[in-house]
Amino acid sequence: MRTFADISVSLDGYVAGPAPSLEEPLGRGGEQLHAWAFRLAAWRRAHGFDGGEDGPESRWVEAIAERTGAYVMGRRMFSGGAGPWDDDPNATGWWGDEPPFHAPVFVVTHHPRPSLELTGTTFTFVTDGVASALAQAREAAGERDVQVSGGADVIQQAIELGRVDELQLHTAPVVLGAGTALLDGVAPAALEIVETIATPQATHVHYRITKTHS
Amino acid sequence: MRTFADISVSLDGYVAGPAPSLEEPLGRGGEQLHAWAFRLAAWRRAHGFDGGEDGPESRWVEAIAERTGAYVMGRRMFSGGAGPWDDDPNATGWWGDEPPFHAPVFVVTHHPRPSLELTGTTFTFVTDGVASALAQAREAAGERDVQVSGGADVIQQAIELGRVDELQLHTAPVVLGAGTALLDGVAPAALEIVETIATPQATHVHYRITKTHS
Repeated sequence: MRTFADISVSLDGYVAGPAPSLEEPLGRGGEQLHAWAFRLAAWRRAHGFDGGEDGPESRWVEAIAERTGAYVMGRRMFSGGAGPWDDDPNATGWWGDEPPFHAPVFVVTHHPRPSLELTGTTFTFVTDGVASALAQAREAAGERDVQVSGGADVIQQAIELGRVDELQLHTAPVVLGAGTALLDGVAPAALEIVETIATPQATHVHYRITKTHS
Repeated sequence: MRTFADISVSLDGYVAGPAPSLEEPLGRGGEQLHAWAFRLAAWRRAHGFDGGEDGPESRWVEAIAERTGAYVMGRRMFSGGAGPWDDDPNATGWWGDEPPFHAPVFVVTHHPRPSLELTGTTFTFVTDGVASALAQAREAAGERDVQVSGGADVIQQAIELGRVDELQLHTAPVVLGAGTALLDGVAPAALEIVETIATPQATHVHYRITKTHS
């Protein structure tokens, strides 16, 4: 029953590149952060595709999904920061009708809207902040863990609230030069390395936060 | 005959913490970035101590020293940013009489001074910039490689000059929250992961820079 943040970052610490647009919703170069995942069997299965590499990296991705009893994410992670659905109250986000989340998702947003039921998951829109979303996710997750999926601002707030026990960072071999920094403004902290999976595509490190100064 | 940067960084990308002082020359919390090294046989041998752990991590550190035919570093890495020797033209820096460098060292500085010969190495003070220091180091290194050891500003300049072929980053499991950022202002780049050594103390990744946009 832990809470962990799971996110891909660049070597210079960005979770998205600068200037997100319709063509590059993750900002300039941001797509490269996730390139490591696309070839994995676990990622492909979750997104409705066949095939892909099945190895320790893929099994690790699967284990992350399996331990997740509920997700917390920001509004832009749900529906994009520059998408045509940005102002559409009925938008299903950029995840389509069969999103890769197989557990309830709590979306932190300023705009109230009714819950959205899709195949395998329900999106609940939370307008009273990250702490509330975390509490609702904790309730929904039962014996399983809560995953804070992003963006950076939601992860930062959850860390500042002292609610994040672990970080799972996927570091891609790319320098973006600018963008949204994952740990910008986060207070000093000590961590323990629980496990590392290294491939030519990315370095996956599972950290436990042992001490925060906030 | 390659040029590589080798440096320890925090999870949030800092090579030193904020507010360096006599007590904490690497800034608040900065010492933690190097904790992984102190227990290794290779580090202990280089610094004149016995014992220590001898494993893949230690052998990797040794291999880095062996491939290095010359070092380039900034003035503060030579003599500290807040030391009592800061204004002493005869200071031998904080490395003592038997520095851990067993190859010529080229120190980028604004203050001309004669070369300094110590056990196993010579410090040459270069007043005409990073490009000149890199050229002199290249000449001195012969068939071996040039190591750019820091600080962040010297590494950034060397990268911007297109002179860095590889990065060897030692990421410590600590968030410093502020300090000197390694890759701040570096232009976008694509890299390849050559090798990773993961331990509970640090994640060591050897990257090759394949494409820069500068």
